Amino acid sequence: MARYTLHCFAQSGNAYKVALYLECSGLDWAPVHVDYFKGATRSADWRAENNEMGEAPVLETDGKRLTQSGAILCYLADTTGQFAPDDRTEALRWILFDNHKFTSYFATWRFMKSFGPAPPEPAVETFLRGRIDAAFGVVEKHIAARDFMLGAKPTIVDFSMIGYLYFGPEETGYDLPAQFPAIHAWTQRMQGLPGWKGPYDLMPGERLASKW
Amino acid sequence: MARYTLHCFAQSGNAYKVALYLECSGLDWAPVHVDYFKGATRSADWRAENNEMGEAPVLETDGKRLTQSGAILCYLADTTGQFAPDDRTEALRWILFDNHKFTSYFATWRFMKSFGPAPPEPAVETFLRGRIDAAFGVVEKHIAARDFMLGAKPTIVDFSMIGYLYFGPEETGYDLPAQFPAIHAWTQRMQGLPGWKGPYDLMPGERLASKW
Repeated sequence: MARYTLHCFAQSGNAYKVALYLECSGLDWAPVHVDYFKGATRSADWRAENNEMGEAPVLETDGKRLTQSGAILCYLADTTGQFAPDDRTEALRWILFDNHKFTSYFATWRFMKSFGPAPPEPAVETFLRGRIDAAFGVVEKHIAARDFMLGAKPTIVDFSMIGYLYFGPEETGYDLPAQFPAIHAWTQRMQGLPGWKGPYDLMPGERLASKW
Repeated sequence: MARYTLHCFAQSGNAYKVALYLECSGLDWAPVHVDYFKGATRSADWRAENNEMGEAPVLETDGKRLTQSGAILCYLADTTGQFAPDDRTEALRWILFDNHKFTSYFATWRFMKSFGPAPPEPAVETFLRGRIDAAFGVVEKHIAARDFMLGAKPTIVDFSMIGYLYFGPEETGYDLPAQFPAIHAWTQRMQGLPGWKGPYDLMPGERLASKW
């Protein structure tokens, strides 16, 4: 059995944050597929056994089941030293911003657009796009001035924040190179890390056609 | 000068999370009013001097300016020991859930409903209420089984998660005692802590009438 077992599925950028970290860190890990699209993470069994929040990913290691990608990345940086930030408070500040405003609205928008039961209402699209553009504007400016979020070296903050940025325009409706060139250049730098793979190559699960 | 200076305003539940922690911890702190409703946090000066994310609160201490309530609470627990969690990963898991799904949608909804430039569109209201109800459902179940989020003792997780729960139904449109009785009972337990004050008594800023 691998040292780390990650319950994940290919469409989950939150799972990808952890999967990519494990792979680029050269850690002994194995994925287990979660059938999210059949409601696995929202079932009573999942909530009782894995995560009462009804979410993936879940990382099994050392007799524990850890959830929330940001908490998992902090735990892994603390226990392995890989991609650990020099300044924990600064790292946490960006991981919180990521969960609150950067990944959050973008992931929600892409899910509704591509995999939801109905296309997003125009008012909801306007709401989400306004928030995405504001958060992406903050990061575009920040990352234009440095190689990685906390400076010269990649850290867990980068693994958190790039989680949804390798899904293509057919899923997200965003053209990163044209709209956010500094963010795009940063994803390319991350792509240069040894071990880098895209979400559909790193985690189990069939590609799905976008619905809307 | 106080040991801790908190840039805040009465309507900000995110600032309140830190203000209430400082007050209940008996720490030497002073508030400075941020004129959020005149756009202070989104100005170029604010972004350059205080927080490039364009947000409050900001905590000044020890020559640093810290932002993001969750990162500030972790920093304060680490450096003062007050309300520190026994399990940091478990604490972070809930603080991330709070920022992503619990405070996040509820705060956004209450702001749009009470203080935004226009009432929320019905589709946006449906979107936000669905997410609020799901996140509140998770917490209602969790807190019904224990006194505080991590067990018998209050920690920074509780200070984070109750940040918006003392704003009344006239601002939030939610009737906590009727809709989420376990969450309401938990806010009452927190209200029993020595030093507890409501947001309008703890932070500067005029009360505003709800607009919609």
